[in-house]
Amino acid sequence: MNYPDIINDLIEGFKKFSGIGEKTAERLALSTLEMDDEVLQIFSEALKNVKKKIKRCKRCNYLTEEDFCVICKDDTFRDKTTICVVEEPKIVTLFEKMGGYHGLYHVLDGLISPLDGVSPEDIHIASLIERIKNEKIHEVIIAVKPSVEGETTALYISKLLEGMNVVVSKIAHGVPIGIDMEYIDSLTLEMALEDRKNVA
Amino acid sequence: MNYPDIINDLIEGFKKFSGIGEKTAERLALSTLEMDDEVLQIFSEALKNVKKKIKRCKRCNYLTEEDFCVICKDDTFRDKTTICVVEEPKIVTLFEKMGGYHGLYHVLDGLISPLDGVSPEDIHIASLIERIKNEKIHEVIIAVKPSVEGETTALYISKLLEGMNVVVSKIAHGVPIGIDMEYIDSLTLEMALEDRKNVA
Repeated sequence: MNYPDIINDLIEGFKKFSGIGEKTAERLALSTLEMDDEVLQIFSEALKNVKKKIKRCKRCNYLTEEDFCVICKDDTFRDKTTICVVEEPKIVTLFEKMGGYHGLYHVLDGLISPLDGVSPEDIHIASLIERIKNEKIHEVIIAVKPSVEGETTALYISKLLEGMNVVVSKIAHGVPIGIDMEYIDSLTLEMALEDRKNVA
Repeated sequence: MNYPDIINDLIEGFKKFSGIGEKTAERLALSTLEMDDEVLQIFSEALKNVKKKIKRCKRCNYLTEEDFCVICKDDTFRDKTTICVVEEPKIVTLFEKMGGYHGLYHVLDGLISPLDGVSPEDIHIASLIERIKNEKIHEVIIAVKPSVEGETTALYISKLLEGMNVVVSKIAHGVPIGIDMEYIDSLTLEMALEDRKNVA
């Protein structure tokens, strides 16, 4: 393209993100010219340092700039007897935004998937078992997506925890709120039916 | 959000771009952790310096890092007697990608719009007139979008150029290639009908 080099650098930079194509990258690159210089400086600094600064929490594997994450370090009202097991860091944020959960987390960084060559050793299951041995954990809530990989991972973890005096639960799958019933796929409907509750 | 500060900085940075909302910004920010460090460094550098480095071409007002843009400096095969007048820099790129035009450009940086308080003095019309006086221009092709503002601007420029011994033309508006006729709005259809050509 016949843009000045620095604009081409920006276009190439934006294109490296999944979901951003040529046209969008061009629009975003050109729009920097209208942005606040301060905003660009902060953004640029963050991009430059993000890979250096971000580490994983030594306890739960969530993102942190220090040894332990804000959730593990939270000494106010956290229920330190419950661990919610999630696939990736952003699910932690999803739970925290929801606000109804006050326990700890454990980020697996993946799900067991023999087809993709992901075995239990490739994800953070061993460290989860270690935590359950060493911390006073009463319940492990498995909150992974309802897929073959999710179910396999949940089953594998629950097998490992058998006889360890800890309750293992799984979040409910079913019809989401605010959706028209007709748009629900049959697998979800089947799960919703199976997990039905008595009306009080 | 409970992400580390630097991730929040990235999310805020991405959110400053129009069309990028909270969810997308979060996804993009987290995906930097999987990106090549070199890519991030180049991207970060470009963001940091873009506003300092990018200037406007002293002749045509297109983007450049020097006094004159690559197109105005191009001494090979450019037809220096034709100016294509466009609204914004990215339309220049559109024409250059198309490849069928080899003349010069003039970027107006806006269109006349009394409703939005944009008068002829607010856009680069005076410098266009100066160029036509000083350069050996034979034709001015007005390539602005077919809107009230576009038509007003085209009319205004053509009035100013009356008696200046220069051909003023306007790109054709009509039915675009590869689109189903049924999706064409009636204004476009009207223009396409009006501008009809005899079949050779």
